[in-house]
Amino acid sequence: MKGVLVVAQSGGPSAVINASLAGVIHEAQQHTCFSAIYGLVHGIEGALNQTMLDLTAETQETLALLQSTPGAALGSSRYKIRDDDYAHILEVFEAHNVHYFIYMGGNGSMYVTQRLAASAAERGYDLGVMGVPKTIDNDLSATDHAPGFGSAARFMALAARDTGRDLEAMATFDDVTILEAMGRNSGWLAAASALLKQDADDAPHLVYVPEIAFDEDVFLADVAAVHDRLGYVFVVVGEGIKDADGEFVGARTFGPVHDTLGRVVHSLTGGPATYLTELVRSRLGLQTRNLRPGLISRAFSACQSNVDQAEAFAVGQVAARHLASGASGMMVNLQRLADEPYAWQVGTVPLDEVAGIEKLLPRHYLDESGKMISTTFTEYALPLLGTLPPPLTRLSGRSVIPLQRSAT
Amino acid sequence: MKGVLVVAQSGGPSAVINASLAGVIHEAQQHTCFSAIYGLVHGIEGALNQTMLDLTAETQETLALLQSTPGAALGSSRYKIRDDDYAHILEVFEAHNVHYFIYMGGNGSMYVTQRLAASAAERGYDLGVMGVPKTIDNDLSATDHAPGFGSAARFMALAARDTGRDLEAMATFDDVTILEAMGRNSGWLAAASALLKQDADDAPHLVYVPEIAFDEDVFLADVAAVHDRLGYVFVVVGEGIKDADGEFVGARTFGPVHDTLGRVVHSLTGGPATYLTELVRSRLGLQTRNLRPGLISRAFSACQSNVDQAEAFAVGQVAARHLASGASGMMVNLQRLADEPYAWQVGTVPLDEVAGIEKLLPRHYLDESGKMISTTFTEYALPLLGTLPPPLTRLSGRSVIPLQRSAT
Repeated sequence: MKGVLVVAQSGGPSAVINASLAGVIHEAQQHTCFSAIYGLVHGIEGALNQTMLDLTAETQETLALLQSTPGAALGSSRYKIRDDDYAHILEVFEAHNVHYFIYMGGNGSMYVTQRLAASAAERGYDLGVMGVPKTIDNDLSATDHAPGFGSAARFMALAARDTGRDLEAMATFDDVTILEAMGRNSGWLAAASALLKQDADDAPHLVYVPEIAFDEDVFLADVAAVHDRLGYVFVVVGEGIKDADGEFVGARTFGPVHDTLGRVVHSLTGGPATYLTELVRSRLGLQTRNLRPGLISRAFSACQSNVDQAEAFAVGQVAARHLASGASGMMVNLQRLADEPYAWQVGTVPLDEVAGIEKLLPRHYLDESGKMISTTFTEYALPLLGTLPPPLTRLSGRSVIPLQRSAT
Repeated sequence: MKGVLVVAQSGGPSAVINASLAGVIHEAQQHTCFSAIYGLVHGIEGALNQTMLDLTAETQETLALLQSTPGAALGSSRYKIRDDDYAHILEVFEAHNVHYFIYMGGNGSMYVTQRLAASAAERGYDLGVMGVPKTIDNDLSATDHAPGFGSAARFMALAARDTGRDLEAMATFDDVTILEAMGRNSGWLAAASALLKQDADDAPHLVYVPEIAFDEDVFLADVAAVHDRLGYVFVVVGEGIKDADGEFVGARTFGPVHDTLGRVVHSLTGGPATYLTELVRSRLGLQTRNLRPGLISRAFSACQSNVDQAEAFAVGQVAARHLASGASGMMVNLQRLADEPYAWQVGTVPLDEVAGIEKLLPRHYLDESGKMISTTFTEYALPLLGTLPPPLTRLSGRSVIPLQRSAT
């Protein structure tokens, strides 16, 4: 049937969530079943308070620039949806003749999409819904990976590689660098920081993920051992690392901070890197600095992966196409056809196979030590960084043989 | 006369200090007066302990990759030189038949270069010396700007622009983002964060530089005022901001940390962003996060400015060329011929006009408020970012008129 298509963005933005929005709009403009294309401002909040933009006539020029514009152009939200909100949203949709809905987000958003579809079905209201995956954390199930992860992974891999060279250069003064990776409960981005290592002793040397209980004494021993061997240590910690009792390391400096959904937001606290910097300095007496790029890792336009951007556009495009053809109740997903050369296609999966399920980093994506990635992880994740940057080099010159100084 | 050329890197690395090294080696390979090209490992420490690499035969392929390799390929140093070191260095130079010396660094390194030349003259030892400017802080006098600044400025400008869009998207939850800029005592990089603003209300909204005394109450009032107006606030603070008594704000969380030269190293402490995040949260009750990219801003290969890289290569090249032609006792500098289109040339300046002088951000590079850059600063600094990235876009769609919900 003919009706308005509503599209919305939810949760933390990524470097490419606007590429997905561009894909939705570009595709929807080709289908006459969509009488108009509306965007909800600040996610589901835009439906509840009827703040919507008419995107029907966005130009191709805007859509092209939108693909490389970070943030969430419609505005996003961490609004905690209430049970009675679904009926209100459907009333607004009915008033505006909305019969199609595309929601971009993580597993929480997929749950909302599914609930909305169920509410519409209950009241006999015709509403086609499609979910579009988005999360830099990559913790979304039923898709090979989530759009947004590849670009954030590219940032983290470059940040570790490049500042690793900086640390190495300053090794006669600096001892330890601690880089904090986003990813709430999962270590996907912490692991990604090791993807561009050229040699075993390149940065990072130690990677701590939230999936493995963090022990301060083991950590200090690990750092001391690498420092004894190399003279410097590059450490990556996932923001969500916890000890064996489940206490967040990042909450030890200033205490935890929660979002509207009751989840700890690590980047709002001192984070584990701040705490561990002081710990290493006080316990090991090593000169230690921390790097907390935080949102830069998810927003940085200069690190958009061309693979990630193309996939993000495609999932948006396919979501609109499927709605136009009458499909509903699905999340568009990414399916891997081959690692090398990397090949992918867009598919679909029923929303109930995704909603609310968190995909943690599998143990076999780390090596035996649990503190470094495995080759299996590299095979999985490296293609997602897009076109690889040129490798770094080292001087090839041989050491000059020391000579006796002349008498003076 | 014929002799060995020694080259060394000093102080904090930049994204392009290796481009300068490539320029030196590439040029020196063309001149027969250089019987060999040696690199000191870890700066002047490499002379004192005779740790040197023979770079005479570095290939063009290595030199090409070296230009985009961050860190300092020879190793750098924060060694505090002693008065009797100069004689020891000259003994080593004499033993190895070294008659040419190129030192890359900031104003401290230029002072060392000058002192070494004076020591050589005193003992009648033939030593040609040239300084090559390098500092991301841009606090070096007698040059229009320093190689390394343009790339770090590009990182900061992109980081503020891109995460500004992220903050804006999340404005119904997030209130304040505080981005910390490197730059010890100067606000050049903090100011650079505002270079890619497209509109007056784009991030950053408030920029605090070390040159202006920081007042917590004024800061809190500034933040509250912008938050009242826009609903979110993007703040940039220079790592070296101090109060009217000269106390570093960044030392308030964990106390100050010093380097071997007795200077406070802000990135080794909690930094002002960590402290101010807690201050805003506790005093204004606003949801606040901080971004502390630290060394990522000076090392990030994906943000190398092509202008900065070309200039860094050129200053290295010209230093070697001048030495070959018999010049000495100078620092190579960058001279601006025009702002728009930007044109530059390489010149020289006597070392004693540079050594030990710190160039702070001039007041007229900020607007009347002292918390935002002036158009004069943009004219000065924008060309140094290199080829500008594509602009960000916004959706052009009009607001949909709210309707009465249908009765249910």
